Amino acid sequence: MSKIPYRFYLSEDQMPKQWYNLRADMPEQPDPMLNPATLKPLSEEDLYPIFCKELAHQEMDSKTAYIDIPEEIQEMYRIYRPSPLIRAYNLEKELGTPAKIYYKFEGNNTSGSHKLNSAIAQAYYAKKQGLTSLTTETGAGQWGTALSEACAYFKIPLTVYMVKCSYNQKPYRKAVMQTFDADVIPSPSDTTEVGRKILADDPDTTGSLGCAISEAVEKATTTEGCRYVLGSVLNQVLLHQSIIGLEAKSAMEILGEYPDIVIGCAGGGSNLGGLIAPFMRDKLVDKKNIRFIAVEPASCPSLTRGKYAYDFCDTGRVTPMARMYTLGCGFIPSANHAGGLRYHGMSPILSKLYHDGYMEAVAYEQTKVFEAAKLFARVETILPAPESSHAIRAAVDEALKCKESGEEKTILFGLTGTGYFDMTAYSAYNEGKMTDYIPTDEDLRKAFDMLPKID
Amino acid sequence: MSKIPYRFYLSEDQMPKQWYNLRADMPEQPDPMLNPATLKPLSEEDLYPIFCKELAHQEMDSKTAYIDIPEEIQEMYRIYRPSPLIRAYNLEKELGTPAKIYYKFEGNNTSGSHKLNSAIAQAYYAKKQGLTSLTTETGAGQWGTALSEACAYFKIPLTVYMVKCSYNQKPYRKAVMQTFDADVIPSPSDTTEVGRKILADDPDTTGSLGCAISEAVEKATTTEGCRYVLGSVLNQVLLHQSIIGLEAKSAMEILGEYPDIVIGCAGGGSNLGGLIAPFMRDKLVDKKNIRFIAVEPASCPSLTRGKYAYDFCDTGRVTPMARMYTLGCGFIPSANHAGGLRYHGMSPILSKLYHDGYMEAVAYEQTKVFEAAKLFARVETILPAPESSHAIRAAVDEALKCKESGEEKTILFGLTGTGYFDMTAYSAYNEGKMTDYIPTDEDLRKAFDMLPKID
Repeated sequence: MSKIPYRFYLSEDQMPKQWYNLRADMPEQPDPMLNPATLKPLSEEDLYPIFCKELAHQEMDSKTAYIDIPEEIQEMYRIYRPSPLIRAYNLEKELGTPAKIYYKFEGNNTSGSHKLNSAIAQAYYAKKQGLTSLTTETGAGQWGTALSEACAYFKIPLTVYMVKCSYNQKPYRKAVMQTFDADVIPSPSDTTEVGRKILADDPDTTGSLGCAISEAVEKATTTEGCRYVLGSVLNQVLLHQSIIGLEAKSAMEILGEYPDIVIGCAGGGSNLGGLIAPFMRDKLVDKKNIRFIAVEPASCPSLTRGKYAYDFCDTGRVTPMARMYTLGCGFIPSANHAGGLRYHGMSPILSKLYHDGYMEAVAYEQTKVFEAAKLFARVETILPAPESSHAIRAAVDEALKCKESGEEKTILFGLTGTGYFDMTAYSAYNEGKMTDYIPTDEDLRKAFDMLPKID
Repeated sequence: MSKIPYRFYLSEDQMPKQWYNLRADMPEQPDPMLNPATLKPLSEEDLYPIFCKELAHQEMDSKTAYIDIPEEIQEMYRIYRPSPLIRAYNLEKELGTPAKIYYKFEGNNTSGSHKLNSAIAQAYYAKKQGLTSLTTETGAGQWGTALSEACAYFKIPLTVYMVKCSYNQKPYRKAVMQTFDADVIPSPSDTTEVGRKILADDPDTTGSLGCAISEAVEKATTTEGCRYVLGSVLNQVLLHQSIIGLEAKSAMEILGEYPDIVIGCAGGGSNLGGLIAPFMRDKLVDKKNIRFIAVEPASCPSLTRGKYAYDFCDTGRVTPMARMYTLGCGFIPSANHAGGLRYHGMSPILSKLYHDGYMEAVAYEQTKVFEAAKLFARVETILPAPESSHAIRAAVDEALKCKESGEEKTILFGLTGTGYFDMTAYSAYNEGKMTDYIPTDEDLRKAFDMLPKID
């Protein structure tokens, strides 16, 4: 191709027909999930009461490298995919860098983020198994929105437990889910035993993600034909999100490009895991020289300051335990506007790769992140989500290093979503009212003390 | 092409390099704008105090059919264009229609609508002329957002007069504009004479679009190096928006398709005028058999129930007069959630085409519109703006007619934007609280009585 275009789209024929399961090519596997009662590794069957069978299978399958994407899922992907691979010519010019910057933009769908890629798969397999309803929890609302879209499409009823303070503060998010016919319930609620108990103890509580998870899981396990679905952290979610990296790699190949550095923001790790998957394969199998950078908020630094240990996946301590980088499931991150990056742990796959030295991590304070977000919005005309802006910040800094060194590196980062529903955060930044919060060593020590004693 | 893809994008090379000026091919021209003081036709020079020179020229030029898009504008277009032409396979299946439905989706940019196409052109020409600032007004905020993006990109300061009730009710919209460094002022304000006068009369007023226009125009004409820009109705705006139709036509040609019916929502007319331009040329010049349908809200039915008459373009009666379909510049539409379709008049170009029988018009009540919007969101996964949903409603009804008659017509409609900032409206619909308002004949008669006596 003579000149690289600003935006490049694969044709429909060029879209991936299989997901890529990075575990199949990892030199060492992540440690198995444990049953919290027996401390024994979980079997696929152990997961059947919570997840539908095919997803339980995907969760445990570390052998199959390429998994066919069912035609029905491909069909829904085609409505909003392929997502564009964008050459950030304007950002490069603004920075005066010799680096070539690319980003894969996942925000061009109504859910506003990459979450839809896995929501579709999870709704489809549930429908195929003949399940009659699904439950989930949502905090900021992006996952709930994505799943509502997918469930409306496959005509499977959905109940979303939405953390009460978000329910009240983000009526627009709630309205989007309701437009897709989801039943949105403020959590804690009187629809579950755990909810009623929490309300009895504290009628004025505004809820928490941990409580919402507990309610959703209870509803799933006590309702005939119902299962629970989750939007990040899990192996199955990273598998579905590999569509991001597969598309990005195909597009770059057609353009005659290949990244030296791949950057993504990391909360639970689903977008980063999906973006890097096929490139990480190149590093692990073909020994390609390529850097991977996970970017997290300084207020919730699970990789950069967490422990690699077994922990619960939820604050309510009802889920299986996974070995991962964690701040402790009792860690409460201080206020941060990147709601999607406030998770205490990190995907076990990414944790293992980081632990084994295949990936780097960096943490930024939010004011530095919003500074980059504003610059990006002005020159690239996309208003980025606060979460995604962490990746922008790191990409800008790597490009500025290239400016100093004169190196023409090729940088690829993931732009996971748009900031339309995060304008309170932008307002705070615009008005100079945004502050930074970093946990002290003492804060972390206290949280680590609460970790289950397994290792 | 063997199978039409769900989404089709032109390549960067295939993007239009010229806008198309439909007036050059119209058998009869729209009547000239009049100076309200002298009632004489305006000259290009008369517009210089308000518009920058190139835009004043484009406003008056009815001869040049194709106008080169400056390279700098093409460059910004390339950041978010081409927009996709989408085959609504799922909507077709849901309706069980033999019709083929296509839509051109303009919502995939941060402004959330087609408005950016003209904002870029207007900001560029102002910068090129050496102007040092721009002003505009905004109601719902889409135009203000688009212009803020364009002005940030071309680095020209912008003041936006935002109707005070919107300023207070839509803090997120305001925050987006501020993120792009626009100075957003609630109108009426004490920054202009007209604003101070209105405030002195009624300190508690929540403002109106007419008042905001008056303030923006005063600011432009009393500030050195400042001009006023407008996002719809004007000939120049329809010219810039022709990029929509040109892209759509090229894409359909590549796919071996051509529309039998082209449908768009119509407020001031900029998106509809842009979408239909090259197809209307085919009808006017090549005598192609093609139908055009303008869709408006029943609450503000300028084409279907208005008069074809000279009227002011603003409620404040400070602008030139244009001959157009109008409900009278004193007409106050009752509450309607499609904020972009509440204009009392209609683009003079479209008015003339409708008057001469080249275009049809239809009006819908908003509950019927939201019914179609929800259906569309579920099967096509895009949450449409209420304005755009008027076009969806009409496209659905034409497709259902095809189902009855068995005709395999090809329908193309314009999906101008997303509904992220309109969730209050969706909530009202979801909760069954949305009602319909249709002006009575008596309401219209009163408004018509206020029309200037010219004809």
